Amino acid sequence: MTFEETLAEAAGEVQEIVYRFLPEETGTQKELLSAMNYSMTAGGKRLRPMLMLETYRLFGGTSESIYPFMAAIEMIHTHSLIHDDLPAMDNDEYRRGRKTTHIVYGEAMAILAGDGLLNLAYETACRAFAVEQDALRVGKALQVLSAKTGISGMMGGQSVDVASCGCNLSEEQLDFIYRLKTGALIEASMKIGAILAGASDEEAAVVERVAADVGMAFQIQDDILDVTSSQQVLGKPINSDEKNHKTTFVTMKGLENAKKEVAAISERAIDTLDGLNRKNPFLRELIFSLITRKK
Amino acid sequence: MTFEETLAEAAGEVQEIVYRFLPEETGTQKELLSAMNYSMTAGGKRLRPMLMLETYRLFGGTSESIYPFMAAIEMIHTHSLIHDDLPAMDNDEYRRGRKTTHIVYGEAMAILAGDGLLNLAYETACRAFAVEQDALRVGKALQVLSAKTGISGMMGGQSVDVASCGCNLSEEQLDFIYRLKTGALIEASMKIGAILAGASDEEAAVVERVAADVGMAFQIQDDILDVTSSQQVLGKPINSDEKNHKTTFVTMKGLENAKKEVAAISERAIDTLDGLNRKNPFLRELIFSLITRKK
Repeated sequence: MTFEETLAEAAGEVQEIVYRFLPEETGTQKELLSAMNYSMTAGGKRLRPMLMLETYRLFGGTSESIYPFMAAIEMIHTHSLIHDDLPAMDNDEYRRGRKTTHIVYGEAMAILAGDGLLNLAYETACRAFAVEQDALRVGKALQVLSAKTGISGMMGGQSVDVASCGCNLSEEQLDFIYRLKTGALIEASMKIGAILAGASDEEAAVVERVAADVGMAFQIQDDILDVTSSQQVLGKPINSDEKNHKTTFVTMKGLENAKKEVAAISERAIDTLDGLNRKNPFLRELIFSLITRKK
Repeated sequence: MTFEETLAEAAGEVQEIVYRFLPEETGTQKELLSAMNYSMTAGGKRLRPMLMLETYRLFGGTSESIYPFMAAIEMIHTHSLIHDDLPAMDNDEYRRGRKTTHIVYGEAMAILAGDGLLNLAYETACRAFAVEQDALRVGKALQVLSAKTGISGMMGGQSVDVASCGCNLSEEQLDFIYRLKTGALIEASMKIGAILAGASDEEAAVVERVAADVGMAFQIQDDILDVTSSQQVLGKPINSDEKNHKTTFVTMKGLENAKKEVAAISERAIDTLDGLNRKNPFLRELIFSLITRKK
């Protein structure tokens, strides 16, 4: 099989696992459940649960205790997309070719659907207590999940982006937003995979460093594609950062420096991963593909 | 000391505990932290953490493992108030005599502050793993917290209220909203207190029934006060339900039946509590005062 075929198969596997944890659309509150499922089934790369599962496998994990956390991280990611798209935030009407949640269900229900998914993430993750004997291990994973999602993680980064409208950022602010808004959930994904598989604290810390590099390279590659790709390849308008007066790594440091930075961080990420002396060739290729992607 | 003096002292103790878990307003994301703290320090009865602490004491709990959960339940309650007040929801400009979060910080930051508090609740509750030796007990408390908050709890109830605008409700819808929107967090508060103190599953289930009655009586008493009290005593406009065409227990069944219902449910709650054969006179008086309150 080519890497693309393996990737497609892995994405199918991950999606099937995530879907198991979606609520059935019944009961008095079914409109809320329908709004939540609408956004959860809107597609996407399922990158975060995939990185989680493959890191879990890297450390020899084989049980289903990882499944609830895979669903949880995708719910948190989807929560952030629903709230980002709201009129008071980015005011987006379309995402991945479908109308956004507030366009279909109204603004009030979209706010509640986002809240509902954030909360369901924790409710779902708690189901791991019934699968994994070691309750403290699940507790550690919950700590990482909540810390990387919250005020010192994704939400902290998002708030700085919102408060500054992403414009005229200082280097420090840009770094803060990239590390937290994009990076923190990728760090959570890989670190939780390691923890639930029984990795040592030292190993989990190494994995976290790899994930931080992956997140940063992924985001800078996004900036690069915005100026070098085409709408046809990317599936969305290019040069959007310039149009929106967004400060990005490319506008701040220039395209050539951005490319050099991605290459340097990627190399470091792969080297650090290899230094663990554990083998998961698919994870290695997956990380490589994220960083060198053309769309 | 009179009950009122004991209550004031208890409220001070609870508030001091909750405040320990609020974030320091520093760092790049300090506007978010400031918006979160603004609403957390806006006053209120601190009823939920107080019920949690007193139920914990009812079952002989003495450690600090309950503290993070007390802060967490108040954060979740405050999250729901911030999002309820948003323009797309109730569009309220004032709460307890202060401007609401979105008026002071803007709508985008208010959405994020609500999200931030919901997430911080779980991040904070996870700190109990470091205090309580029995990780599975903390896990059980987390399960209850997330289940009672989410789609089958507070948020589920809120979504039905929003979808119906609270008007022309069927008896079934009204019961659903009362049990979930108000009742679920009170059930979580008391049940978590019981669980963390080491109560048996049977005892925790009894406590849950008491809490469900307390929540229902509390909500119907709210409806009664809206038509029988005065703005001076209540501190907010009366007859607001009629003005907003809200279906309430009083509009559906009449004032006299509402009063009888509160009396019957309260008596049952106190009887069930007494049946546990455990003593916490303050908790008993607290429950009694909530149900017979004049404001």
